[in-house]
Amino acid sequence: MATLSIDAERLLGRLRELGQIGRAGDGRLIRLAGSDADRAGRDAFVAWLREAGLDVAVDRIGNIFGIWRDRVNTDEAPVLLGSHIDTVIDAGIYDGSYGVLSGLEVIETLKAAGFAPARPVAVAAFTNEEGVRYAPDMMGSLVHAGGLSVEEALATIGTDGTILGPELERIGYAGPEEPGFLKPHVYVELHIEQGPVLEREGVSIGAVENLQGISWQRVVIDGAANHAGTTPMSMRRDAGHAAARVVTFLRDRAKNANAPTVATVGCMSFEPNAINVIPSHATFTVDLRDPDEGRLRAEEAALAAYLRHLAGAEDVTISVERLARFEPVTFDRRIVELVEDAARNRGLASRRMTSGAGHDAQMIARIAPSAMIFVPSTGGISHNPREHTPDAALVAGANVLLDVVTRLAAE
Amino acid sequence: MATLSIDAERLLGRLRELGQIGRAGDGRLIRLAGSDADRAGRDAFVAWLREAGLDVAVDRIGNIFGIWRDRVNTDEAPVLLGSHIDTVIDAGIYDGSYGVLSGLEVIETLKAAGFAPARPVAVAAFTNEEGVRYAPDMMGSLVHAGGLSVEEALATIGTDGTILGPELERIGYAGPEEPGFLKPHVYVELHIEQGPVLEREGVSIGAVENLQGISWQRVVIDGAANHAGTTPMSMRRDAGHAAARVVTFLRDRAKNANAPTVATVGCMSFEPNAINVIPSHATFTVDLRDPDEGRLRAEEAALAAYLRHLAGAEDVTISVERLARFEPVTFDRRIVELVEDAARNRGLASRRMTSGAGHDAQMIARIAPSAMIFVPSTGGISHNPREHTPDAALVAGANVLLDVVTRLAAE
Repeated sequence: MATLSIDAERLLGRLRELGQIGRAGDGRLIRLAGSDADRAGRDAFVAWLREAGLDVAVDRIGNIFGIWRDRVNTDEAPVLLGSHIDTVIDAGIYDGSYGVLSGLEVIETLKAAGFAPARPVAVAAFTNEEGVRYAPDMMGSLVHAGGLSVEEALATIGTDGTILGPELERIGYAGPEEPGFLKPHVYVELHIEQGPVLEREGVSIGAVENLQGISWQRVVIDGAANHAGTTPMSMRRDAGHAAARVVTFLRDRAKNANAPTVATVGCMSFEPNAINVIPSHATFTVDLRDPDEGRLRAEEAALAAYLRHLAGAEDVTISVERLARFEPVTFDRRIVELVEDAARNRGLASRRMTSGAGHDAQMIARIAPSAMIFVPSTGGISHNPREHTPDAALVAGANVLLDVVTRLAAE
Repeated sequence: MATLSIDAERLLGRLRELGQIGRAGDGRLIRLAGSDADRAGRDAFVAWLREAGLDVAVDRIGNIFGIWRDRVNTDEAPVLLGSHIDTVIDAGIYDGSYGVLSGLEVIETLKAAGFAPARPVAVAAFTNEEGVRYAPDMMGSLVHAGGLSVEEALATIGTDGTILGPELERIGYAGPEEPGFLKPHVYVELHIEQGPVLEREGVSIGAVENLQGISWQRVVIDGAANHAGTTPMSMRRDAGHAAARVVTFLRDRAKNANAPTVATVGCMSFEPNAINVIPSHATFTVDLRDPDEGRLRAEEAALAAYLRHLAGAEDVTISVERLARFEPVTFDRRIVELVEDAARNRGLASRRMTSGAGHDAQMIARIAPSAMIFVPSTGGISHNPREHTPDAALVAGANVLLDVVTRLAAE
């Protein structure tokens, strides 16, 4: 079994084929959860599952499972692989799809080789990981792990005014299974890094040992609109300036800290947004991440204290809304070591790392030992048509997953 | 003549009547240059000019003049009063209209009192002072003063895709006179302050001795979009953060300077403007004003130097587009002193001041001795439905104008 390897052409071919499904008229890849494009992607995936001879199951939140089991192992908890196939707007072809199709590829490879696993091996495509159309993100895996009721999830209203439940029914993926029906023995998710570290260091495999905690907040600052020419600097209540102070505060703090904390202000808007009017309102988002919950809380507290100070110093009113909050996740040490072993046996350099992005694995980690495997992202680019991982690196990652699954499925 | 005063009810009544013309369905006052609402406002003004027995003239850029002259003085250069009657979106009723209607009021008062001026007295409503629909602002007075050709002005494409020339024809205000046909002896513009100084100091009359220079620039910063969770702080090229640095730089510099410089960033936008993506682009405007040209240039140079520094320090590309530039204007000292005298004689407190906003007077000052008179703005608020000046203050300002015109028209 030492030389068993996945079928590179089959995996890469499916990745490209799925990557052509959901192209908009202008060529952009847009496969938002519950959309017609999502249906087309799901249909292709289910067809591949059936071709591979797997049992296909769909649960009420639309998570799709392809299960390889036999009469001997059918009562054992499965080794679960997977990720998601929904995308952001104008996406690349790797994010999510690579993990899902590699899971299927690993199963087909083991099956064709006559491997007799001690427990089922299954691959999942979780609904709405991206959260672009329906919030929160990682919804399907969150529901699977029991962190959100399926009723609440199905009632989610989308950015386009649609409701997720009826949309899943419309596209034929409101399945009969109760979410969580398949309780995994372990969960392993293969994914592109979506960051620059592996490529920069020339390392092929990331053995992901933990995942950053994420804190998303929306901050609204209210000042007073006044004429830009006639209002002395000392009499201004400039909401835009106060917002800029927060941006530089967060940047300086994160950059000067001897810690992996990252802080980002991605959205910003001013009102009335006129060249000669002092902004009365500024609205912006704060994305704070840290793999340590204590540090993440300290960063949130530091921001809150700064906002209090700023409100007084600038005579503005500041309100904060929490948009999302996930505690850091520590992955299963034993699986992480299996990933390192597998890489070493294949002659691939690996390093332990933290996932900066959120992934379905962080949800499934609530109910089963879990870990992730990363492969390099060229230029660290993701959520973008320029998202890219070289073919050889994709194949290497899938082979490491194959070796890890071979060990786990024999338990 | 010492006790001659304007007809307060007539002036205030017309202000309120004009303020009801151009109301949108939702009640907002929107009288943009060249619009149907502008036509309705112009029609009302012209009707009042004719009622008052004035000669009405309209030039090719749509400037309207009401001229009071007789056979004796018809060859003399007129004392010109005026302002504009176009408005911003969701405007108050005072900005511009107060000066135009007060000019008419002064003429009617002098005429009714049997005053025989040594030269004509005229009132102008200049086209498109606000510049909301067609750039640049103060267009009609700029064309009148020869600073912009009428052909170029008429070819201006609006924010709604319309062209000013055809729009003026459509509303019936593409007149026959060549712009500049009426060369004034002097020009006096009465206006609300649009700032907080007079109210704060309890002063009734601003004798406006100069007008700030204005520098408008648009700055575009290009960085790189990357994942907010996976990109270390040290590897970021964050255009949003760089933009925030400029905002705080300008604020700190203007606030700490022992000078009347004001600096405002009124417009700001990030791209892609997503909570978990580092901004790749930031676009913002810079409004710099100072009554001293040397200082204004120094501020522009300081900004340019800071942007060069920032481009290197943050590994971003920065481009700057000049949107507008007006040198500071010094008004005519003799007229300013006449304003102070008139206020003193009426028992009104006055102070010399700088106009922070741009006004038609700055254009007419290129061709004739000019000055402005300010009255207090409650709360300093302008370009807003809450724009307000108490009736008594409006009447006081118009009476000061009356006294100044009485002196100037006797010359």
